[in-house]
Amino acid sequence: MSNVLVFGHKNPDTDTITSAIVYAYLKQQLGVDAEAVRLGEVNNETKFALEKFGFEAPRFISNVKEEAERVILVDHNEFQQSADGIEEVQIVEVIDHHRIANFQTADPLYFRAEPVGCTATILNKIFKENSIDIPANMAGLMLSAIISDTLLFKSPTCTEQDIQAGKELAAIAGVDAAEYGLAMLKAGADLSDKSLEDLLSLDAKGFEFGEYKAVVAQVNAVDIEDVLGRHEELTNLLNKNVADNGLDLFFFVVTDILNNDSTAVAVGRVAEAAAKAFGAEIVNGRISLPGVVSRKKQIVPVLTESLK
Amino acid sequence: MSNVLVFGHKNPDTDTITSAIVYAYLKQQLGVDAEAVRLGEVNNETKFALEKFGFEAPRFISNVKEEAERVILVDHNEFQQSADGIEEVQIVEVIDHHRIANFQTADPLYFRAEPVGCTATILNKIFKENSIDIPANMAGLMLSAIISDTLLFKSPTCTEQDIQAGKELAAIAGVDAAEYGLAMLKAGADLSDKSLEDLLSLDAKGFEFGEYKAVVAQVNAVDIEDVLGRHEELTNLLNKNVADNGLDLFFFVVTDILNNDSTAVAVGRVAEAAAKAFGAEIVNGRISLPGVVSRKKQIVPVLTESLK
Repeated sequence: MSNVLVFGHKNPDTDTITSAIVYAYLKQQLGVDAEAVRLGEVNNETKFALEKFGFEAPRFISNVKEEAERVILVDHNEFQQSADGIEEVQIVEVIDHHRIANFQTADPLYFRAEPVGCTATILNKIFKENSIDIPANMAGLMLSAIISDTLLFKSPTCTEQDIQAGKELAAIAGVDAAEYGLAMLKAGADLSDKSLEDLLSLDAKGFEFGEYKAVVAQVNAVDIEDVLGRHEELTNLLNKNVADNGLDLFFFVVTDILNNDSTAVAVGRVAEAAAKAFGAEIVNGRISLPGVVSRKKQIVPVLTESLK
Repeated sequence: MSNVLVFGHKNPDTDTITSAIVYAYLKQQLGVDAEAVRLGEVNNETKFALEKFGFEAPRFISNVKEEAERVILVDHNEFQQSADGIEEVQIVEVIDHHRIANFQTADPLYFRAEPVGCTATILNKIFKENSIDIPANMAGLMLSAIISDTLLFKSPTCTEQDIQAGKELAAIAGVDAAEYGLAMLKAGADLSDKSLEDLLSLDAKGFEFGEYKAVVAQVNAVDIEDVLGRHEELTNLLNKNVADNGLDLFFFVVTDILNNDSTAVAVGRVAEAAAKAFGAEIVNGRISLPGVVSRKKQIVPVLTESLK
């Protein structure tokens, strides 16, 4: 029970998995007995990155209280996105790039959030601040995280710092960022082995918007009709999810990674209000979101503001 | 309305006032139109520091919404300790060294909390990271904040980083930290011009411990009987405050700055539970807290844990 567990959010994405691995390594170099773990299944995009750079997925845990007394959170802070039992352990550090909400501690801690596109961009700075070299395979994971979170540097969340870190890390890893990145994103957008149930939970995050309990899920696709074409089955599943989990809103976003647009399907008693928040209407069950690719920067703040 | 306001908590102490002044200066050097303001009266200790290094107190504001759209918080994050109207403005940065609670944003931000003894210790790092020289008078303010928050490096909140920063800043400011520090602390512990009402609000902070609404106030004294000797008047005032503000607990701590011990007077329906949290009893209306000097590290976590 003496070690510190490092983990990202539930329904892990590439930044969450790789940042846990990389930050646990960094803490080990600083003499901390840190272990990376994960809170859910690794997706196809992340598998592609782990295989490319020769890593195994971290160990899965369900309830953190049974595993450790001290933890470090990466790539998230909201408790509903974190491990079960999170209120029962001591959070000693947080490294994140999201809004802060539903987070609290009894003691002071090291909490570092920066408004950049990716946790790995912050980790890149922490390596430098501590004068620790980044091994080539770790740099490859960090590059993968930045490409994933910024959709190859095209998302509005992408900052100059992410672009610069991406260049540095691609050089250390010895890969061509554009070529490798597109292959990785396409591996993640290959939905052929996924059921609709899988797609709803693949990258789903829980939020509280004012009084409303919501889930905002996002999947990347090369052809959005692969998902949205099955409209009736999809809305039935969304309605069931809303009923089973007492949600006020399930906002399901399919992002076209080649054209950088999204289309959403919203279900729940505030679904129409959610569409209006974007100045949009629900047409044939769909909400068109041109130019929207970032849940964090283009969806969550809009819903937070309009549903408060 | 285009500028960014920088401020610390209500009932400001030396770290809150000086960190607002110093961080506003630092942001100005980085091209940001930043202005330091304050949320309450400047105490005697802080006045001593401001006069010593040639500063005026920042401008007072009451409701932040009427003053700015964007703000930076220093030395606090909990909304109940912050400006009225804080939910209505955008918080773009937080620099703090306290626990995190009752804080949330709609957007990602720069949030930097470190478990050190003083905000000024973090500011000292940010100057270095940005290669900005610290003027001698600003270094004096920062040194004052560290001495205040660590009780001249003797509080359990004091870290190696605070000690090192104190040395660097004393050298830049050209003062003897021990001699200047004791004079400053004594100026703050001079309670002769204060009514008991003043003392209750001088350094009072609101907290939520689980379901309970509490205030934990602290005053430094050279002779604690100056305050505690007026027991009946004091408990009457505390009881009135609890009734007027719907509190479950008012925990009033008098800290002996020469011997580094504290004595508390607790009032409210969970007063006895609060005493028990420290393994203590209420004797003659007082709770003895030997070795306790830090609200943040030795009082708030204990009450958080036992009253949750």
